[in-house]
Amino acid sequence: MEQKVIAQPLQVALDKFNALDEKISHYSSVIGLADWDSKVMAPKKGRSVFAKAIGTLRTEVFKMSVSQEMGELLTVLTSSEFEEQLDTVTKAKVREYRKYYQKSKTIPADLYQEYAILTGQANDAWEEARATNNFEFYLPFLERIIDFKRQFAEIYGYQEHPYDALLDEFEPGLTVNKLDPLFAKLRESSVNLLERIQKYGQPAPHHIFEQSYDVEKQKQFNRFFLPIIGFDMEAGRLDETVHPFAQTVNIGDVRLTTRYLAENVSSALFGTIHEAGHGIYEQNVNPAFGESVLQEGASFGIHESQSRFLENMVGRSKEFWRYFYPQLQSYFPEQLKNVSVEGFYRAVNTVKPSFIRVEADELTYNLHIMVRYEIEKALISGELEAKDLPVVWNQKMKEYLGITPSTDSEGVLQDVHWSFGGIGYFPSYSLGNLYAAQILRTIEKEIPDFYQHIENGKFDVIQEWLKDSIHQYGKLYTPNELIVRVTGEELNADYLVEYLEKKYSAVYGL
Amino acid sequence: MEQKVIAQPLQVALDKFNALDEKISHYSSVIGLADWDSKVMAPKKGRSVFAKAIGTLRTEVFKMSVSQEMGELLTVLTSSEFEEQLDTVTKAKVREYRKYYQKSKTIPADLYQEYAILTGQANDAWEEARATNNFEFYLPFLERIIDFKRQFAEIYGYQEHPYDALLDEFEPGLTVNKLDPLFAKLRESSVNLLERIQKYGQPAPHHIFEQSYDVEKQKQFNRFFLPIIGFDMEAGRLDETVHPFAQTVNIGDVRLTTRYLAENVSSALFGTIHEAGHGIYEQNVNPAFGESVLQEGASFGIHESQSRFLENMVGRSKEFWRYFYPQLQSYFPEQLKNVSVEGFYRAVNTVKPSFIRVEADELTYNLHIMVRYEIEKALISGELEAKDLPVVWNQKMKEYLGITPSTDSEGVLQDVHWSFGGIGYFPSYSLGNLYAAQILRTIEKEIPDFYQHIENGKFDVIQEWLKDSIHQYGKLYTPNELIVRVTGEELNADYLVEYLEKKYSAVYGL
Repeated sequence: MEQKVIAQPLQVALDKFNALDEKISHYSSVIGLADWDSKVMAPKKGRSVFAKAIGTLRTEVFKMSVSQEMGELLTVLTSSEFEEQLDTVTKAKVREYRKYYQKSKTIPADLYQEYAILTGQANDAWEEARATNNFEFYLPFLERIIDFKRQFAEIYGYQEHPYDALLDEFEPGLTVNKLDPLFAKLRESSVNLLERIQKYGQPAPHHIFEQSYDVEKQKQFNRFFLPIIGFDMEAGRLDETVHPFAQTVNIGDVRLTTRYLAENVSSALFGTIHEAGHGIYEQNVNPAFGESVLQEGASFGIHESQSRFLENMVGRSKEFWRYFYPQLQSYFPEQLKNVSVEGFYRAVNTVKPSFIRVEADELTYNLHIMVRYEIEKALISGELEAKDLPVVWNQKMKEYLGITPSTDSEGVLQDVHWSFGGIGYFPSYSLGNLYAAQILRTIEKEIPDFYQHIENGKFDVIQEWLKDSIHQYGKLYTPNELIVRVTGEELNADYLVEYLEKKYSAVYGL
Repeated sequence: MEQKVIAQPLQVALDKFNALDEKISHYSSVIGLADWDSKVMAPKKGRSVFAKAIGTLRTEVFKMSVSQEMGELLTVLTSSEFEEQLDTVTKAKVREYRKYYQKSKTIPADLYQEYAILTGQANDAWEEARATNNFEFYLPFLERIIDFKRQFAEIYGYQEHPYDALLDEFEPGLTVNKLDPLFAKLRESSVNLLERIQKYGQPAPHHIFEQSYDVEKQKQFNRFFLPIIGFDMEAGRLDETVHPFAQTVNIGDVRLTTRYLAENVSSALFGTIHEAGHGIYEQNVNPAFGESVLQEGASFGIHESQSRFLENMVGRSKEFWRYFYPQLQSYFPEQLKNVSVEGFYRAVNTVKPSFIRVEADELTYNLHIMVRYEIEKALISGELEAKDLPVVWNQKMKEYLGITPSTDSEGVLQDVHWSFGGIGYFPSYSLGNLYAAQILRTIEKEIPDFYQHIENGKFDVIQEWLKDSIHQYGKLYTPNELIVRVTGEELNADYLVEYLEKKYSAVYGL
């Protein structure tokens, strides 16, 4: 009988908590749809009211997430009396909501309001500054954002480095102390490899992309290969935007976009494969998490590992093109008639330092991230001030990539992230590459004929493995728990270092 | 000083009321977007969760609309102390919310819940019954829906006829006593005109539609003429669905769909023009009503008047095709090379009784509505029972249209309306035609060269008139107030009767 007395209020709390979770998830689903629509479908003149309507729903989600009801439920469910009785799924949900609740509650409402207004203004200022190459115009906004982020870091709290508090928003549990040695190893070996490629490498036939590729045919080819590599077209869409992205409405409705350039067939190809990696992840989350906070991926870094894995480890492999290249040639017989699959493979793996991160190749991409990581750490610790950014940016670009931007627009002003306060976000991109290489090592052990499957166009075995090992869990595990479960060890930079060394030695005949 | 003491609580109530109105409008906007998306964009596998997410938002809108806060605000704003101080706009908003609040409050929650479940089931049952031509299967659902509607009519209350209570939901203020003579006159003259056309009319060259029209070219032509007739493509879209519709997200974002049939170019043409009539209405509502309950049109009937006016009075006029036909011929030179503009005009005005309402021509369309109107009145008053519907339906079809359906699927089972409880809805369609003809008579007086403008492809003068006279007001006026303002008199069937007589006498050489 005493069991029952205890169980009753727990059950009531669980029912309420799950109902609130589902409600928040439904709101988030519709907000996600509206976000997608605003970028893909919405006509120009409706945008401002559209944005206000989404804003109203976002405000409601925020209110529900920090409501008195949520606070009370979290208190009950994390009480010593009940916490141990929770199942794994509920514990994970409680972990997520509690984290958000506590963070939101620690920031005074006035401060947060001021910050929200600032980021709106900063985005406009950034757009103008980039368009007019005017860093000075953007500087006061950036200074205030950094000031806020320094304050937030102090309020959230940290053990060793204030940047840890910001990293944790994107990669829960990650710290500077963990990340520094990983990134240092990756950076040193990448800089070294890049120098060797530039000195001794045999140039790849990259000119094959500098032709005209009919956009309608490109669309057809993208629609042709997308389901083959594992994206379920009955549970998703592929549309067109200037900036490719993936947006989940629910696990049966995952929407990708890509960008078609008439003068470069590879832009849409790899854009689509990349976003498909994100999309396939969310299509394969356990349906039981489908209307809950656990529906998303484990973290930004883990999510990026899935897009990078598909784009680079799979999509830029020789075996991938041995299967797909004849098909691509049949779509573009004129353009590709004199290019062998070997030539095409080398072309899509061309390494060339460039100023713009989003267009960077697999090797130099991480060096772009290193520039930003070093800068963000120093900004948050106070070792660096925003006014000195243009100089430091250019120094680091020279040091890591060997090139110096000629304007701030193609230098320090190129990224949108800081203007929305996304400091701590950039490392996720390289974490994705690190996780992906580590996962590759494991999958190669567990599916010994991994690359043979790719060459045969049999992606189902690989996607099943990814689903069983990673995708199905959604946000159930923290990123560190997940990578240890999947690969047997914590994140280790050796795998990416070795992968890049091996791949580019072959591509460039080093 | 005393003024101020009174004004203060009124201002507080007004601020709260307007904020609640805006919030409900934002929710409705996003729900509208999601509805559109579910029909136009959403992939199959996400639909059930998608529907649940929309359901969650709908429930919130309902809760807000019947909340204690809403009740208290309506009480304050309709109090003898304050009501007279309200401006026209606020009065109209209060009128709308109060009506919904009172109706919702009078139906016991249990009863409404039961009804909501029933209509969900009835829709599935109707789909199956229609597919299998099995009226008996649908009958118990229909009987229960009619039973509910009879109860609702009693609960809402009425002066003379129980059907009045249901009519009022679609056309505020309309009653059987007002409608009967209007419809009787229209029905009698239409039956008579139809008989004369069938006896003495010269057949129109309708075969020209029975050719193959490239769908891509149809899409281009629809996109070509849509902005010319007044639809702002920067404040809207045109997409493709099986059942054409118009959906407003906000007044800067109005979305139309149409249906392209390869074997019939006129389906998409008139579908698009019809939906454009709805869409142009909502694009031209006063922006000050843009995020409020007044954003929509005045009523179902007034809304339909705008789509019918554009589709029929404008889009099926000889002058319209004098302007557009050479363009259409340039898109389809093979198909239309032997057809004159006169022949094309007569073809798009072909009268031919058919079983399916949605495909009916301008004349017989109203006779389909008369069948349904007579039946609905009798069902609600108790003079007719659902089990007798197939027989009565076929009798009335024979009586009004001169044809008898061979199956219930092409007879009494053809429409979706009853399965969602939309009894009282059908008259709106013919009201639209009646309003449209009355508006035409006025516009011809106020713009004497009305048809010359059409022949010159100058639609701006006409659209300006519609905007000034009707569109800008949104839901500010009741339909009766509006038609009197615009035309100087209440709804009068003579205008449509005369319009049809004149038009078809010319088309058929009577």
